[in-house]
Amino acid sequence: MSTPPLTLWRGARLATMCPGAPWGLIDDGALLVEGDTLRWVGAEHALPPALARQAEHDISLDGALVTPGLIDCHTHLVYGGHRATEFELRLQGASYDEIARAGGGIRSTVTATRVATDALLYKLAAQRARTLMAEGVTTIEIKSGYGLSAEHEARCLRVARRLGRELPLTVRCTSLGAHAVPHEYTGRPDDYIDAVCDWLTMQHGEGLVDAVDAFCDHIAFTPAQTRRIFEAARRLGLPIKLHAEQLSNQHGAALAAEFGALSADHLEHLDDAGIAAMAKAGTVAVLLPGAFYFLRETRLPPTPELRAAGVPIAIASDHNPGSSPGLSLLLMLNMACTLFRMTPEEALAGVTVHAAQALGLAQTHGRLQAGRQADFVVWDLAAPNELAYWFGRNPCRRIVRAGVEIEST
Amino acid sequence: MSTPPLTLWRGARLATMCPGAPWGLIDDGALLVEGDTLRWVGAEHALPPALARQAEHDISLDGALVTPGLIDCHTHLVYGGHRATEFELRLQGASYDEIARAGGGIRSTVTATRVATDALLYKLAAQRARTLMAEGVTTIEIKSGYGLSAEHEARCLRVARRLGRELPLTVRCTSLGAHAVPHEYTGRPDDYIDAVCDWLTMQHGEGLVDAVDAFCDHIAFTPAQTRRIFEAARRLGLPIKLHAEQLSNQHGAALAAEFGALSADHLEHLDDAGIAAMAKAGTVAVLLPGAFYFLRETRLPPTPELRAAGVPIAIASDHNPGSSPGLSLLLMLNMACTLFRMTPEEALAGVTVHAAQALGLAQTHGRLQAGRQADFVVWDLAAPNELAYWFGRNPCRRIVRAGVEIEST
Ligand SMILES: [Zn+2]
Ligand SMILES: [Zn+2]
Repeated sequence: MSTPPLTLWRGARLATMCPGAPWGLIDDGALLVEGDTLRWVGAEHALPPALARQAEHDISLDGALVTPGLIDCHTHLVYGGHRATEFELRLQGASYDEIARAGGGIRSTVTATRVATDALLYKLAAQRARTLMAEGVTTIEIKSGYGLSAEHEARCLRVARRLGRELPLTVRCTSLGAHAVPHEYTGRPDDYIDAVCDWLTMQHGEGLVDAVDAFCDHIAFTPAQTRRIFEAARRLGLPIKLHAEQLSNQHGAALAAEFGALSADHLEHLDDAGIAAMAKAGTVAVLLPGAFYFLRETRLPPTPELRAAGVPIAIASDHNPGSSPGLSLLLMLNMACTLFRMTPEEALAGVTVHAAQALGLAQTHGRLQAGRQADFVVWDLAAPNELAYWFGRNPCRRIVRAGVEIEST
Repeated sequence: MSTPPLTLWRGARLATMCPGAPWGLIDDGALLVEGDTLRWVGAEHALPPALARQAEHDISLDGALVTPGLIDCHTHLVYGGHRATEFELRLQGASYDEIARAGGGIRSTVTATRVATDALLYKLAAQRARTLMAEGVTTIEIKSGYGLSAEHEARCLRVARRLGRELPLTVRCTSLGAHAVPHEYTGRPDDYIDAVCDWLTMQHGEGLVDAVDAFCDHIAFTPAQTRRIFEAARRLGLPIKLHAEQLSNQHGAALAAEFGALSADHLEHLDDAGIAAMAKAGTVAVLLPGAFYFLRETRLPPTPELRAAGVPIAIASDHNPGSSPGLSLLLMLNMACTLFRMTPEEALAGVTVHAAQALGLAQTHGRLQAGRQADFVVWDLAAPNELAYWFGRNPCRRIVRAGVEIEST
C-alpha cells in the first residue's frame, strides 16, 4: 500500500492552540500534512530533514497567520422559511398577540420546515453552511428541532448528514426533538417527551445522531422532562448537550453535568452550583453572543466565574431564524470579546479547542498538533488578536480541510 | 453625438425608496439605464413601448429584490496600523494608563498613519472600500483626521480622492483636522484650531474637500473651537458636518444646525432643543450603531424623538480603528434595528435616501428614480425586510454603479 503524498506548509505564524505559549504560537512554523492528518507541526528549523525530504509539495506562506479550522459547535442550520416579517412587525410595535396571529414564532418555522421538500431544505442549509465555511469553518454541529414529528425530525437529521457527505465539512448531528411542543401535542408535553424518546431510538438506529439535546426553560421543557430525554440518550449510549439557563435558572446545567454532558449552552442565568457541577463533570460552557445580542439580553453569562472554575468556554453562532439569524462565526468572536469580555485568545479557543470538546472531538480536532485532522485556515492577518478585533470582513485566504484545500466558492 | 446604449433591467422587485408606498415598492418593476443615469423607473407594464424598443440590452431578474446602491455616509477609512493589541490589552484588564504606555489610543493611529507611505495608505483604504463595496455600497464618505498636520491631512484626503478616481465608487471627502489635538499642539488647542483653518484653505484650493467636520465633545474640541472651524468652512463656501453629542451634551447639534449642517453624527446625548434645531435646519441625524456596540454604550440616541420631529435618520459604519473596526454596512442595518429599534425600512432609508442627503447628494443619489445616477444592487432576497434581518452574510448578487455593472472581485 502506498502512503499518501506529503505536503509541507512553511513560513506560517501558527496559532496552534496547544498549551505552553499564548495561542500556542509558533513563529516561522511549519505543518507537514499526510493524507487527511497533520504528520508534524512545529518551528520550521526543527523539522527533521528526513521528513522534509518526503514532502512532495512545498508551500510558503510568507508569515501569514494559520489557525486550526474553526468549529461552530451550536447551530440550527436546517429549517424552512425565515422570520424577517416577524422581526419587522416587532420593530413596528406589533404586540406578541398580533405577531402570533400573523403566524410568527417557532411554530411558523416548524410549518415552513414541514412543507419544504428535502431538496429545498438541503439547498438552504447548504447555502448557510457555505457562508460559514467561507470564514474558515471546517466543522459544524447541526441540530434538528424544527420538524417536531417522527418524519420531519428524521428528515432534518438526514439533510444534516447529507451536508457532511457532500460538502468538505465535518458535520455533527444533534437530535433536538425536545426543542418546543408542536401544536399536535399542545397541553400534553409529557406525551410529547414520550414520542421524542421513541423517535430517538429510530434515529439512532438509522445512524443519524451524534448527540442529544433539549431546551430546558420555563417556556420549553421542565428539568423532569429533560431528565427523561437524557435517560433515553443514556440507554442508547449517546452523549448529551443542553440549552440551559438562557431565560431563567432551572438548574439545567447541573442536571446536564450529572449525565456527563458534552456541553451546556447559553447559560446567562447559570449559578455557582451549576458552574461547580460543570467543572467537575468536564462539561463545556457554550456561550452564544449572537442570540444575546439579537434578543437584547442584559444579563451576562458568568464568564469570570466560569474562567475561575476552569470550565472550558466555547463560542458558537446559534444560527437560527428566531433568535440569531447571523451567519458569521468571526462576528461571534468579536461579540464574545465586546459583549462578554472574553479575551481574543479565549474567543479563538472557543471556536477551536473548546468547541471540539463540546462536540466530542477533543482528541482529533481543534488544535494544530501532529496526529490530528489536517483542518486549518490561512489568514490575511499578521496577529491572532486581529481575528476578534475586526468585524464584518472576511480575512480568510486559504482553507484546508482533512488535508485537502477547499476551492473558494 | 450618439446617445449611449440603453439597458433594460426587468422582472425586478424594486425598493425605490421614493415616497408613496412602503419602501417605494414596485413589484414587476423595470429600470431603463441610459449611460450613467436612470432614464425610466416603474412597473414593467407601464414602460412605454417606444422606450422599450430603444433598449440594446435586456436583462431579466426573475423577481429579485433591487435597491438603490448603498451609501456609507460616515467613515474614517484612511489610516495606518490598527488597534487590535489595544483591544486585547483592555480585555486582559489593562488600565487606561497601561494602554497609553503601550502606545494605544488615537495618537498611535496618527503615528502609524504618518509613517505609512501614500501607496500603503491607498492599498489599505482600497481593501477596506472593496469590502464595503462587496455588500452593494456604491458611495462612501471618507474623513481625514489621522494625519493632524498640514502635510498628512492633505495626504489622507488625496488618498480618498484617488479611491474615487480608481474604484467604481463615488467618494465624498470630508476634512476632519479637528478630530484630536496632535502631540505637537498639546495644551494649545486654540493654536491647533488656527492651523486647521489654514490647512482647510489649502486643501480646498487643491480641490480635496467636499465638507468640513469636527469632533465636539469634552474629550475633543469645545463648541467655541468648533464654531471657528465652521466659520472657516463658511468663508470657503463648504458644507459642514459634526461629531456631536456622542459622549456628552455640548449642544453641538444645535450649533451645527445654526450653520445649516448637512448632518450631525452620533447623537446619543442629543436633547430636545438639538432635535428641534436639526429639524428646522434640515440637518440629517447620522446614527452609528457600530461604535455604540463596540464601546458598549447604554445610552441610546433619541430615535423616537428624531422620528417624531421629522429629522431624517441615516445609518453609517463609522469605520475606524479605535471605536468601530467593522466593515459591514448590512450589519449596521441589523444593529440599527436591534440596538436602536429602527424599522427595517427606516434602516434601509438610512443607507440610501437619507445617507445621500447627509452627503449633499439628495438630488442625485439614494433613490431609484428617473434622472438620478444609475446606482443599484440586485439581491438574492425576496423581500426588503430581509436586508436588515439576516446578519453576517452577504446576499448581494449584482451591483451597477453609474450604469456600469461592477465585476465581483
Ligand atoms: Zn440553540
Ligand atoms: Zn466618526
